[in-house]
Amino acid sequence: MSETIDTLVEHTSAFVRDVVIPLEQDERWGGHGPSAELVEELRSAARAAGLVAPHLAAADRPALSMRDTARLFRAAGYSPLGPVALNIAAPDEGNMHLLERVASDAQKAERLETLASGEARSVFLMTEPDNGAGSDPSLLKTRAERVPGGWRISGRKWLITGATGARFAIIMAATDEGATMLLSDMDRPEIVIERVLDTLDSALPGGHAVIRLDGLFVGDADVLGEVGQGLRYAQVRLAPARLTHCMRWTGAARRAHDIAARYACERTAFGKPLIDHEGVGFMLADNLIDLKTAELLTDWCADVIDAGERGSQESSIAKVAVSEALYRVADRCVQILGGLGVTRDTIVERVFRELRAFRIYDGPSEVHRWSIASKIKRDIAAQP
Amino acid sequence: MSETIDTLVEHTSAFVRDVVIPLEQDERWGGHGPSAELVEELRSAARAAGLVAPHLAAADRPALSMRDTARLFRAAGYSPLGPVALNIAAPDEGNMHLLERVASDAQKAERLETLASGEARSVFLMTEPDNGAGSDPSLLKTRAERVPGGWRISGRKWLITGATGARFAIIMAATDEGATMLLSDMDRPEIVIERVLDTLDSALPGGHAVIRLDGLFVGDADVLGEVGQGLRYAQVRLAPARLTHCMRWTGAARRAHDIAARYACERTAFGKPLIDHEGVGFMLADNLIDLKTAELLTDWCADVIDAGERGSQESSIAKVAVSEALYRVADRCVQILGGLGVTRDTIVERVFRELRAFRIYDGPSEVHRWSIASKIKRDIAAQP
Amino acid sequence: MSETIDTLVEHTSAFVRDVVIPLEQDERWGGHGPSAELVEELRSAARAAGLVAPHLAAADRPALSMRDTARLFRAAGYSPLGPVALNIAAPDEGNMHLLERVASDAQKAERLETLASGEARSVFLMTEPDNGAGSDPSLLKTRAERVPGGWRISGRKWLITGATGARFAIIMAATDEGATMLLSDMDRPEIVIERVLDTLDSALPGGHAVIRLDGLFVGDADVLGEVGQGLRYAQVRLAPARLTHCMRWTGAARRAHDIAARYACERTAFGKPLIDHEGVGFMLADNLIDLKTAELLTDWCADVIDAGERGSQESSIAKVAVSEALYRVADRCVQILGGLGVTRDTIVERVFRELRAFRIYDGPSEVHRWSIASKIKRDIAAQP
Amino acid sequence: MSETIDTLVEHTSAFVRDVVIPLEQDERWGGHGPSAELVEELRSAARAAGLVAPHLAAADRPALSMRDTARLFRAAGYSPLGPVALNIAAPDEGNMHLLERVASDAQKAERLETLASGEARSVFLMTEPDNGAGSDPSLLKTRAERVPGGWRISGRKWLITGATGARFAIIMAATDEGATMLLSDMDRPEIVIERVLDTLDSALPGGHAVIRLDGLFVGDADVLGEVGQGLRYAQVRLAPARLTHCMRWTGAARRAHDIAARYACERTAFGKPLIDHEGVGFMLADNLIDLKTAELLTDWCADVIDAGERGSQESSIAKVAVSEALYRVADRCVQILGGLGVTRDTIVERVFRELRAFRIYDGPSEVHRWSIASKIKRDIAAQP
Repeated sequence: MSETIDTLVEHTSAFVRDVVIPLEQDERWGGHGPSAELVEELRSAARAAGLVAPHLAAADRPALSMRDTARLFRAAGYSPLGPVALNIAAPDEGNMHLLERVASDAQKAERLETLASGEARSVFLMTEPDNGAGSDPSLLKTRAERVPGGWRISGRKWLITGATGARFAIIMAATDEGATMLLSDMDRPEIVIERVLDTLDSALPGGHAVIRLDGLFVGDADVLGEVGQGLRYAQVRLAPARLTHCMRWTGAARRAHDIAARYACERTAFGKPLIDHEGVGFMLADNLIDLKTAELLTDWCADVIDAGERGSQESSIAKVAVSEALYRVADRCVQILGGLGVTRDTIVERVFRELRAFRIYDGPSEVHRWSIASKIKRDIAAQP
Repeated sequence: MSETIDTLVEHTSAFVRDVVIPLEQDERWGGHGPSAELVEELRSAARAAGLVAPHLAAADRPALSMRDTARLFRAAGYSPLGPVALNIAAPDEGNMHLLERVASDAQKAERLETLASGEARSVFLMTEPDNGAGSDPSLLKTRAERVPGGWRISGRKWLITGATGARFAIIMAATDEGATMLLSDMDRPEIVIERVLDTLDSALPGGHAVIRLDGLFVGDADVLGEVGQGLRYAQVRLAPARLTHCMRWTGAARRAHDIAARYACERTAFGKPLIDHEGVGFMLADNLIDLKTAELLTDWCADVIDAGERGSQESSIAKVAVSEALYRVADRCVQILGGLGVTRDTIVERVFRELRAFRIYDGPSEVHRWSIASKIKRDIAAQP
Repeated sequence: MSETIDTLVEHTSAFVRDVVIPLEQDERWGGHGPSAELVEELRSAARAAGLVAPHLAAADRPALSMRDTARLFRAAGYSPLGPVALNIAAPDEGNMHLLERVASDAQKAERLETLASGEARSVFLMTEPDNGAGSDPSLLKTRAERVPGGWRISGRKWLITGATGARFAIIMAATDEGATMLLSDMDRPEIVIERVLDTLDSALPGGHAVIRLDGLFVGDADVLGEVGQGLRYAQVRLAPARLTHCMRWTGAARRAHDIAARYACERTAFGKPLIDHEGVGFMLADNLIDLKTAELLTDWCADVIDAGERGSQESSIAKVAVSEALYRVADRCVQILGGLGVTRDTIVERVFRELRAFRIYDGPSEVHRWSIASKIKRDIAAQP
Repeated sequence: MSETIDTLVEHTSAFVRDVVIPLEQDERWGGHGPSAELVEELRSAARAAGLVAPHLAAADRPALSMRDTARLFRAAGYSPLGPVALNIAAPDEGNMHLLERVASDAQKAERLETLASGEARSVFLMTEPDNGAGSDPSLLKTRAERVPGGWRISGRKWLITGATGARFAIIMAATDEGATMLLSDMDRPEIVIERVLDTLDSALPGGHAVIRLDGLFVGDADVLGEVGQGLRYAQVRLAPARLTHCMRWTGAARRAHDIAARYACERTAFGKPLIDHEGVGFMLADNLIDLKTAELLTDWCADVIDAGERGSQESSIAKVAVSEALYRVADRCVQILGGLGVTRDTIVERVFRELRAFRIYDGPSEVHRWSIASKIKRDIAAQP
């Protein structure tokens, strides 16, 4: 098994290096993510290489543990387009995880299979504008009202990743029984993509959209899991989703570091290679420390989840520490590259922007710090 | 006089608020800066308001001191487009400063006047690709060879701000007598704009280009100042240019702070306004500290320059400390805004990107720290 | 006047260099501050030099402005024993400031004169143990009850600076009319110094004590100012006291920097002087930045107070930023000195410990950040 | 085996809690470490509990792996006096490690046994004053000259931990064949303890001394290992010694955190427990992150050493990152405790001072960063 994962990781690394990275300068990768065409090109290549969602269980293999998934995703993340190619990017990857655990057999047959195969993309409609749900999910404003045979959903969603081109949506809405998740196809006139936002980050297909739900009807069979259990399911999705973010972005930060380290060895200023200037050498040393820390924290949290625990506290610790460590790495790489670092001539500039956003996505550092502190308080209260 | 500057600053603030800020969401402001058309629209408005390069001496007024200039530029910088509107943006502002001090009367008549009036834009061709001149100007590779009646210049320049649409260039080239500055119109076939770079920052018209000089001829009368004095003139330009950057960007960071502070008062999460969460309130407090520090360091250095000193050490101190302080402000503002902070729906996202670049432009922090340390060493060696 | 302050500062610097610094290695300077004998030796020398409390008004001179006081106190603070010698150390300096503004003529005659002359020392009994008054003064537990002819005070105080050897006390106590300040001689049996605490800092005579007030009687004439105005008077004392702390400690941090810079020039490792290693040179550069920032923020706040304002927000900004900047300076100096830095062979080790405590004394950074944030909120609420 | 280590760790934790911690306020623990008497009291108790150097191989057990040692040492380090009690403190613990690997059988019989049993203490004479050996061991000035039958050693050593009361020394001296290690009893008149330094840290018996070697004679049999191999042996000692420092101090930082967390739950200010203030809660959250990071990096490096590798790069990474992370923890704990934090009423103040020194001992962060950067450079040079 360990051999299998070694092989899979090597295979993935080679695929990223030989197929994905050469496409990074493709002009179809714009401010709202790679175009549908470029995504399909990447994904076809992954399909040919047998690398579509390779962490999931298949006929000939069990699902990877989180610990092994970490190795795989880091290898894939070495290019920001790698996870898109392998169909292990957000939000689909987290949506698959959620559907696997919560969806009915019929829902799985209808939605999960096309999602896992990379044929379709999905969205997760949670965050809201206008002081609605965000870090604090209790502010949920989108409502689903019971109507004969189903539900009618109205509200606005915001910063919805991958909406353009997605086939179906998981929608979080408030009901009288509590927050509830519901499924819907995206090609419905009551789902209006108002606009796609211009954002700092740009790795994900479809970018981030503002969406209006204008009395969207979904049937009773489209409720995901049980009515009123939406917040609980959000937790099911959240801890692993945070952690797979950490995995993918560790790969990207490592890439930035490799580029900066090589540049520092080749570029000369003031009489010697940059790396021989302690001001630069120390930054590279700190990069190694941060990268190793990111890896160790991720693996530790993966072990916790593999042991069957929720890993809520652990994934908060990992999310804060990893996102901030990787951001520092990217920031230093920009600085080491100097003028080159602020241009898109290397991938470092994109990685920097992605990692800035990562400190906010899936819960800003402040929310996680708060939840860690709350746990400390509860633990002390529980002591004799 | 103090009254005059008060009035000028108020006038500028009102102009930025009423005229410039409404144009910030104009789609003609793209990744390579505001378009020529948008620049002209902004500048016409400034002209109508009597606010074109108002720091320069004119028939009815002397030039502002650096200290007063600081107040003016901070007011103008409250929008990243403000300095463009007022014609006090890089590189033109620094080029005017340089031409005023070094250009011959003929050169001033030919170049400086159209520049100061905002009719023309200019470029400063210094930085080079391929391990050429950058933070270390001694690596200069572009050569100017004496030919009958003038000079023939060949080489490549890189990260040249505002090249597209500029009327003339100041070119730094190596000669047998040492680095030399030369003037040339930009509409010459031997000046090839190879491409405009995609960059993190996007406030300056024309963006940043790669330029090839293919045996460009300039006459003897186009030498700026004396042959071989290029590095000295670069210093003349450098200290004030660094400082005016600090001024403009302090305005922008203040803007980001104002937006974030207001948002923190209006947005509620976990039962109270964000600002009542210490995690947010403390960030805003740190912003105020950093903004005040930036202002005080800039004013202190302005006083040194106003007193007739070069201010080399002081401007290095100001440049490092101000760029890093303002960057922290912008970074905190992004974080406070959360998801909104990573979108272009507020100006904060642009300010963040500009300020990241500012830590590199006009000398990365590391180069300035090194020069400050060298001065400490010389000072100690000079002690008894 | 500017000449006078120049002369005074030079005189002070020479006194510190020639008289105070040689006494720093005196073994009478222990963990609870310099002994009474050493204090008297220092103070006699200051008296002889005409340097006792030279910022106060005297027959032949007006009081110094806060701005000039800043220069004087920085010069005196170049040795941690300098302020003790000049009788401008906490808590006496703040107590004089308070008495000048609030005490009755009789109280001034009785207490202020011996205090200003350096003949007596005083204490300020505010902070309490056991969840009593500290950063949050509303928790005040010590009670003063009205009895015929005066008040009877009971309670415990903690971290009381300079108690051993002090002649009189200003006591903050709760009454039915609100917090009230009262005066008492210290040689009263009802004032019990339970113990002197071992603390990180060690510059102040008498150290920091735990004190019990066992039904201490004070007469009506011993009420300082009005009954129930204690918290307001505490504010009168607080802003300037914070700022004079900033002044004195800027001098000490500058001293640490000078020692570290000289060491870095003289000590060689890995083939060159330490200062030629960027890892060290950059730290020294950051020291200069922090020292200049500390000076500018202090002077700015001094100007505000000189202009007759309370300077509450400004002194919070200065206190947080200066204490943290100076602490970073001291921390870097320890690091630059390496093994030597952790020994008491240089004054740097003591300065480091003092500055660590300064981040807590007179309000921890967190309390000041909170009050700055609250002001931001009020300012925004007051906007149209 | 895993059960054995579990039991051992629990046993150690109980011993520290029940026996060691109650002795922390003993006045025999002064500025130069616990007195000989207090050390003996601690060690007798450890002997009675079967906890003397329990990581070493004994008749009934093999030596612990580094990974298991990490758990044991963290448990012991929960009090700064724990490692002294268990005889696993520096420099003895590192000296045992060195002797085990390099000493002759005769030397082991003579020196190692009494050392391991806790009967004797030892010193490691490496660091020198006056620009001699320190972070850069090539500056070694102490000389050993061949004389009939042995060597005559002269020089000065500085910051020598535990000299007072030690039974024997390992001396690093320059010879014509290169740096060499030699053994000597400490009770020789040619070994003069000039003075014991006052230092920031105070956990180790005997403190840190300045020592003069006045022509000390040692026999040929007292050469440790081979002549000229001193620097290599220093490396043998160094990586594990750094790592065991990390282990012990992680325990101490955890202790500080536990104290601060409990205080934050019990102490109220501004209307709620401190921990409910985000300013405090976030610090505690960051503590957990830093503590977990310290543990993971230590364990990772322990695994590398257990796998038989030198772990030079890994132990540099661990040393920098762990010492800085733990220092941040201690610094935050001081801050959370406020006034209490700067007093010796809790152990936090001592832990803070120890951890400040740890950023310098066994190689300052800067030296490790430099060696990490050098390795990055070598690795890139070795790439195709």
